[in-house]
Amino acid sequence: MIGISQVEELGNIETPIILTNTLSVPTAADALIDYTIFTKKNDIRSVNPIVGETNDARLNDIQGRHLQRTHILAAIKNASPEKVKEGNVGAGTGTTCFGFKGGIGSASRKLPENLGGYTVGVLVQTNFGGVLQIDGVPIGKELEKYYLRDKLNESPDGSCMIVVATDAPLDTRNLKRLAKRAFLGLGKTGGIASNGSGDYVIAFSTAKDLRVAYQSDSKFEYQKILRNDEMSPLFMAANEATEEAIINSLFAAETMTSKMNGKEKRIEALPIKKVLEILKKYNRIDDSEK
Amino acid sequence: MIGISQVEELGNIETPIILTNTLSVPTAADALIDYTIFTKKNDIRSVNPIVGETNDARLNDIQGRHLQRTHILAAIKNASPEKVKEGNVGAGTGTTCFGFKGGIGSASRKLPENLGGYTVGVLVQTNFGGVLQIDGVPIGKELEKYYLRDKLNESPDGSCMIVVATDAPLDTRNLKRLAKRAFLGLGKTGGIASNGSGDYVIAFSTAKDLRVAYQSDSKFEYQKILRNDEMSPLFMAANEATEEAIINSLFAAETMTSKMNGKEKRIEALPIKKVLEILKKYNRIDDSEK
Amino acid sequence: MIGISQVEELGNIETPIILTNTLSVPTAADALIDYTIFTKKNDIRSVNPIVGETNDARLNDIQGRHLQRTHILAAIKNASPEKVKEGNVGAGTGTTCFGFKGGIGSASRKLPENLGGYTVGVLVQTNFGGVLQIDGVPIGKELEKYYLRDKLNESPDGSCMIVVATDAPLDTRNLKRLAKRAFLGLGKTGGIASNGSGDYVIAFSTAKDLRVAYQSDSKFEYQKILRNDEMSPLFMAANEATEEAIINSLFAAETMTSKMNGKEKRIEALPIKKVLEILKKYNRIDDSEK
Amino acid sequence: MIGISQVEELGNIETPIILTNTLSVPTAADALIDYTIFTKKNDIRSVNPIVGETNDARLNDIQGRHLQRTHILAAIKNASPEKVKEGNVGAGTGTTCFGFKGGIGSASRKLPENLGGYTVGVLVQTNFGGVLQIDGVPIGKELEKYYLRDKLNESPDGSCMIVVATDAPLDTRNLKRLAKRAFLGLGKTGGIASNGSGDYVIAFSTAKDLRVAYQSDSKFEYQKILRNDEMSPLFMAANEATEEAIINSLFAAETMTSKMNGKEKRIEALPIKKVLEILKKYNRIDDSEK
Repeated sequence: MIGISQVEELGNIETPIILTNTLSVPTAADALIDYTIFTKKNDIRSVNPIVGETNDARLNDIQGRHLQRTHILAAIKNASPEKVKEGNVGAGTGTTCFGFKGGIGSASRKLPENLGGYTVGVLVQTNFGGVLQIDGVPIGKELEKYYLRDKLNESPDGSCMIVVATDAPLDTRNLKRLAKRAFLGLGKTGGIASNGSGDYVIAFSTAKDLRVAYQSDSKFEYQKILRNDEMSPLFMAANEATEEAIINSLFAAETMTSKMNGKEKRIEALPIKKVLEILKKYNRIDDSEK
Repeated sequence: MIGISQVEELGNIETPIILTNTLSVPTAADALIDYTIFTKKNDIRSVNPIVGETNDARLNDIQGRHLQRTHILAAIKNASPEKVKEGNVGAGTGTTCFGFKGGIGSASRKLPENLGGYTVGVLVQTNFGGVLQIDGVPIGKELEKYYLRDKLNESPDGSCMIVVATDAPLDTRNLKRLAKRAFLGLGKTGGIASNGSGDYVIAFSTAKDLRVAYQSDSKFEYQKILRNDEMSPLFMAANEATEEAIINSLFAAETMTSKMNGKEKRIEALPIKKVLEILKKYNRIDDSEK
Repeated sequence: MIGISQVEELGNIETPIILTNTLSVPTAADALIDYTIFTKKNDIRSVNPIVGETNDARLNDIQGRHLQRTHILAAIKNASPEKVKEGNVGAGTGTTCFGFKGGIGSASRKLPENLGGYTVGVLVQTNFGGVLQIDGVPIGKELEKYYLRDKLNESPDGSCMIVVATDAPLDTRNLKRLAKRAFLGLGKTGGIASNGSGDYVIAFSTAKDLRVAYQSDSKFEYQKILRNDEMSPLFMAANEATEEAIINSLFAAETMTSKMNGKEKRIEALPIKKVLEILKKYNRIDDSEK
Repeated sequence: MIGISQVEELGNIETPIILTNTLSVPTAADALIDYTIFTKKNDIRSVNPIVGETNDARLNDIQGRHLQRTHILAAIKNASPEKVKEGNVGAGTGTTCFGFKGGIGSASRKLPENLGGYTVGVLVQTNFGGVLQIDGVPIGKELEKYYLRDKLNESPDGSCMIVVATDAPLDTRNLKRLAKRAFLGLGKTGGIASNGSGDYVIAFSTAKDLRVAYQSDSKFEYQKILRNDEMSPLFMAANEATEEAIINSLFAAETMTSKMNGKEKRIEALPIKKVLEILKKYNRIDDSEK
């Protein structure tokens, strides 16, 4: 991931956040610089591009670095406020999660009005391993597909990018705390944050009066921020939305096949029918829900 | 918690680790200084006592600071390699967890020989809230006792102390990573790391050749440490043992009543019979296990 | 030092900041708890005492832990807005700095009105070593008293506590950055932050609208905070004031003798007359200034 | 800077370290990926390129991103164990330091044999501001060129990249501590780490038995590492070498002129003759040295 240390130091985000594969990070960062120069036009002397990544080399010819700057610029141009596409899309096209096809997932929670009515939205790029749980049910074990089951043949390595957005007015300190709590939701899906993982959470607020003007005549920012005492419901929201976003990525992703060096590789999608049966066996859904 | 920043800076633990309540931390630290001066006898000029804490003011007259140095010294003296006492013992006497009586809990995992055969042991002091899950089953919801259920009457505030010990030969960097992964186990029990929480994990290795001599004629330490590639099974062990230790603390703790300022307070133990029924309902145990 | 991790997590300071010697930290923390319970009277269930320390065992019978809670409470009671006492006072009574008698020092910088007119004040407890420079002049070398001069007989070990206060309205992120820059001022005096050191900087703002109410009916804090672009002059102020505060501690401290285990120990004060001569030799002062 | 968070997590450096300008970081990272794939040939699925940067937009058409991957690859190819080129070279070509032409600088310290005989080498890319001191002498003030002198016309913004290499056998924890101490050397030159700065220090050890094999049949690393007690002389070495490397960059850099958008910009080199006179005035050199 690049850009996060400057976000911590300066407290602001200067570019769209791009998610991609590990070896395409430089291309994505370059495209963000293009985009910033193009859109701001004026005397930009520096910009801190933010790019997250996971390694999709199981399916993707990652060394080929097929992604071009134009793809990134197109992705930014096509961004819309509509429903997030999930599964095998964008940076999620080649990812693997708990041995199944992973991808992009998203979920959100809206607090009741008496707790502020704020929304916490989470988007994840899932590419990690462990022992899959869905709604607490041991899906991975039932499907006999989990880390350390037999000959270590399912490496848990890989990581998860988590982006947390909220309209709650939080300062940088509380955004950092919110990010940390999102990580607990990953734990609930059975993720173990294995050795090779570089799990990152980036959290930001869209609250209007927290937006930092790029240039300003004022020496001050006027902020109306939530007190610490109001944070716990938001922490729970980030936790739950992260768990659900990861599960959503698995339900949305479809089986993917690729050919590299003459060899075909294939990662199966989560077998949804079987999963529903297991959920039923564990009394988490009944026939009417199914 | 005190002592942890120096552990990170210098990489060693100089005293027993004491767990207590928030306002008794100074007393415990003082007792550790006594203990060190007494046992080392020689020219100790400094010592870094390590004390963790959670706030048990729901049940304990915490302002009374009834704990004396002698209690701490007795606890150290009585420490034994026998089975850890769990539940309402020591620093766990007054804690509350998920609205039920919390306490001390412990669990461990031993890796198979082909993965090194190492043990990871975890001891927790549970005093936090959220939405209780046991083995993935929504116990908190079924018992209608969870954070934000109705009038916020069950504050999730409080924290969890987690101590991770392993005989795997890990350097400080990998111990720190192990500690971080233990935190995921807390997530799996439904903990949300609420606002007031100050959750801490301290991890240490008991591997002989990693022990740092207090004084030494050599300028070097000779270390045989595990490679990064060997860490994932240990991460999973710490994750699982932490989850189980927290659940164990709940099963071991008994209902506790206290009287403060003429008012009686009472925190009920986890209703084990009901819990077993719920686990059965969700098909996690059958009658033979029960 | 205790209390700093919670300051980072929660962003507020709940007690006076006490500086003392290493082994009296528990006593000081206990006294701060007394003080808080006494002054707040109401239902205090928790408090995060902040205590900094350096190790004065060269001169002080540190194992004796002669400091009592009443001394700490008296220090708080006697605190006044008057000029800070420097040198052999309080936590500075037994400290050693660059091989000379150290102590408490203080200095401040006030920015010109066009840069905001803010004040940055620094208080230090100096107990560290290195190669003393005053206003850039190699005093340590000229006096032939510096780390590694001959047989390592002047251990540089020890540390420096630095407290930075400002009336500039800074949020926690920028206070943390300010603290980091103060550390550069220590560098300018020739301090090397040796192995045994646990140098800590704590920075806080006294700006009225940044004060966090202990309890509040509002869910929000309304903050008017300085923009990043305004920080550099404050960084320079913290840097300069820290350097000067350290030097002031040396000029104010007087030769100190102690007797421990029948042995007399003596740490000489900085030989001010000689220092002035050296400063003159290096053309930093002329006779009229001297 | 990119790559540093993974170095902290995994404890190893996988590529050469490239220094460049802010907007060429993606190109440099891409070239490092090329280089790794090319040199390792085998199944590289991931690599963590390490690239540091400072912003040279005062002199360089930074938006033009004129640096090509081939330039980076040539730089790696041409790297040699010979004396480091200093001044207007590589990433130092366009930098500004204390208002004068900055650049690349290097210096080292070798400990005496009784302290281990280790070498600490430092390379810097200087692009920051403050109030220049050379050997403690107030050069910036004497030349009337320093931050905040009059109309803020000398912005102190910019940063310094510091690379610390040593043959002392240090683990990751002590390398991180060494890096922090190098920062003190920057303070001694009068740098203030202004708002826009993103100063980074990366420290590594070249000790043979600390080299981490990319792949290994062993599950262990066997390390002979220095004890904490041996660190202070190395800390002093890093401090001194950093200060000297920064000053060397100023002495080596020559006046640089550039033309952007039809406007000529010019940053003067440090006026060495005048500087020597000032050093003489402050009695730091005599005629024989000059």
